[in-house]
Amino acid sequence: MVRVPYAELYEALLRVLLKLGMEAERACLCAKLFAETSLDGVYSHGLNRFPRFVEMVRRGIVDLQAEPVRVSSEGAIERWDGQMGPGNLNAYRSMQRTIELSREFGVGCVALRNTNHWMRGGSYGWQAAHAGAVGICWTNTMPNLPPWGATDPRIGNNPLVIAVPRPSGHVVLDTAMSQFSYGALASYRMRGEQLPVVGGFDSEGRLTLDPGAIEESGRPLPIGFWKGSGLALMLDMLAALLSGGRSTHEVPADPDLEAGLSQLFLAFNISSPDEEQSSASLVDRIIEHLQMASAEGEKVRYPGERTLETRRLNLERGVPVEPDIWQHVQTL
Amino acid sequence: MVRVPYAELYEALLRVLLKLGMEAERACLCAKLFAETSLDGVYSHGLNRFPRFVEMVRRGIVDLQAEPVRVSSEGAIERWDGQMGPGNLNAYRSMQRTIELSREFGVGCVALRNTNHWMRGGSYGWQAAHAGAVGICWTNTMPNLPPWGATDPRIGNNPLVIAVPRPSGHVVLDTAMSQFSYGALASYRMRGEQLPVVGGFDSEGRLTLDPGAIEESGRPLPIGFWKGSGLALMLDMLAALLSGGRSTHEVPADPDLEAGLSQLFLAFNISSPDEEQSSASLVDRIIEHLQMASAEGEKVRYPGERTLETRRLNLERGVPVEPDIWQHVQTL
Repeated sequence: MVRVPYAELYEALLRVLLKLGMEAERACLCAKLFAETSLDGVYSHGLNRFPRFVEMVRRGIVDLQAEPVRVSSEGAIERWDGQMGPGNLNAYRSMQRTIELSREFGVGCVALRNTNHWMRGGSYGWQAAHAGAVGICWTNTMPNLPPWGATDPRIGNNPLVIAVPRPSGHVVLDTAMSQFSYGALASYRMRGEQLPVVGGFDSEGRLTLDPGAIEESGRPLPIGFWKGSGLALMLDMLAALLSGGRSTHEVPADPDLEAGLSQLFLAFNISSPDEEQSSASLVDRIIEHLQMASAEGEKVRYPGERTLETRRLNLERGVPVEPDIWQHVQTL
Repeated sequence: MVRVPYAELYEALLRVLLKLGMEAERACLCAKLFAETSLDGVYSHGLNRFPRFVEMVRRGIVDLQAEPVRVSSEGAIERWDGQMGPGNLNAYRSMQRTIELSREFGVGCVALRNTNHWMRGGSYGWQAAHAGAVGICWTNTMPNLPPWGATDPRIGNNPLVIAVPRPSGHVVLDTAMSQFSYGALASYRMRGEQLPVVGGFDSEGRLTLDPGAIEESGRPLPIGFWKGSGLALMLDMLAALLSGGRSTHEVPADPDLEAGLSQLFLAFNISSPDEEQSSASLVDRIIEHLQMASAEGEKVRYPGERTLETRRLNLERGVPVEPDIWQHVQTL
C-alpha cells in the first residue's frame, strides 16, 4: 500500500476529468467527491472505482456533460431527471435542491430518475449535515441480492443514508441492505479471512462465513434476513415510483452496464436558532449515552465516528491507494 | 385456541373503552385499531395487548381523554404533542394530518412527541395506503436492544413502517429493528421451538438459536448486526429531534411504564390521475417480478401479502383469541 497526499489524489482525478472534456467547475466537484470518498476510507467507491467510471464515460453510458433537469414540482417535492449524467454530480445537486426545499417548506424532497451510480452514498449525508440539515437518501441498484427465500438476485442492495448534523462530529449512517457488499466479500477473501458473521449462502444453500462461497453462489444475505429483503424492496419501489424512473428489475444486471437508477432525497430543516441549539444538545446526549454502554470489546461507536478518524489519519499521513490503480489513473 | 367473530371482538373492546369513559367516536376508532390488529394476525398488539393498555389508563400513564395538539407548523412539516393520550389514536390522527399535508405540498410530515405505544405500527401504513398515499412512519421505544458491541440495552427496536398503495393489495412493510421481538421469542419458547436464524446472544456472549437463552441474557440481535444497530439509533434520533420529544434513553425501561414516545410520519402524494395509473402498474410489475423468483421452499412473498391472507381467513372463520385473555377482557 502507498499513501499519497489528498491534494495529489484530487489533482490527478481532476486532470483526467478535464481531459475527458468535463467543464471545470463540475470537474472540480466530481474529483472532490471521488477523492473525499477515498480520504474517508471508502476505497472501493473512491479511486478504485474511478477507472470504471471513466470507462463508462468513454463507452457513452455515462454522459459527462448532462445536467439534471427538473421535470415537475409539487411544492415541497420535485421530480428531476438525471439525463444519464455522472451519478455523483446528479446526487450532489439533488441533495442541494432538497436542502433548499427544506428551508422553504420545513421538509423537502427530490425524486431523481435516469441517474447513475452515486458512488459513496454517505457523501450526500455529509453534505446535508454540513449544511445543518437532517438528510435521508437512498438509491436503487441493479439486481444483486436474492430476496429472502429465493436463489436468484431480484432485488438491489439499495444503500440508505441518514445524516444528522452535530457540531462535534456529524452522525452519518451509510448502509446497504446486504450484510456485506461484493467488494467487502472480495476483501475478506483476498485477506484469507472468514466473515465475522454469516454473510450469505453457499451453493448448497447453507449459511456460511466463507466469503468465496458466497461470491460463487451469488447469494449474499439481506440484513436481518427477511427484514432487509422487504426493506430493500420498499426502497426500490419508492425511488422508482416517486421519480417515475426505473425499478431495480429494469436496471442491467452487470456492474459495467448498471445505469439509469432512481434515487430519493429528503431533508428536514432544523435551522431556527432555538432548534439548532436544543438539537445539538439532544444529539450529543444520545451519543454520550450510547458511548457509556458496557462494551464487550472495542468501545461502542456511532455511525460516522470511524469515518472522522480515518479522514483525520488520511489527511495527516496521506490517502492509501492501490499502487496498480494509482499508476493506471496517471496514464488516463 | 378459540375463534370469535370480528364484530364480537370489536364490540367487546368498544364496551370496555366506553365504560372507561372514552368519548364514543374515539372509542370506536380505538377499538377498531385494536380489533383489526388481531384480525390481521398481529395478536401480540391486538387483543393480547389490550389489558395492559387498560391498566396503563387506570394508572394514569395513558390519558384516555387527551387529544394531540399542534405545537408548530413550518409548511409541509408540523410538530404535534400527543399529550400522553392513547398511542393508537395519536398515531392515526398524525398520519391523517400527514396525508393532508402531502396533498397540499406533495410531501407531508408530522413529528409527534409525548405520545404512547402505537400498538401495531402497520396500522398507519395501511391507513396511508387506503388513502392512496405512500406512507412512512416510525416510533422510538424504551431501551430494549443492546447496540452492536454492547451488552446492555441502550437503543430501542424502533419499528419502521413503509406502505405503498396497490389496487390488488397494498404493500406494507412493518419491521422492528430487532431480529425477533420479545413477544416472538416467547412464542418460540412456549412452542418448544428453536429460532430459524440466530436471534441474539446467550449469557456467555455466544450467538444462539435458543429463544429462552436470549430472553435470559436480554441481548436480542439488531437486524444485520451493526447495521440495524446504527439504523435504530438514527430512527430514534430523528424522531426525538424533529418532534422535540424524548429519545429512547429518556423513556422508562419497563413495558408497564413505557410512555412519552416520539414518532415521525411522512406521506407522499401520488394522486394525480396520470401518476395513479402509472404508479399502480409499476408496483404491480415489481411485485410480479419478485414473485417469479426461483424459490427454495415456499413462494417468495411481498410485505403485506401474508397480512391480507390472514385477514381474509380470520374474517371468514373468526379471529383467534387466547381464551384466558378473551375471558378477562369480558370482565373489564
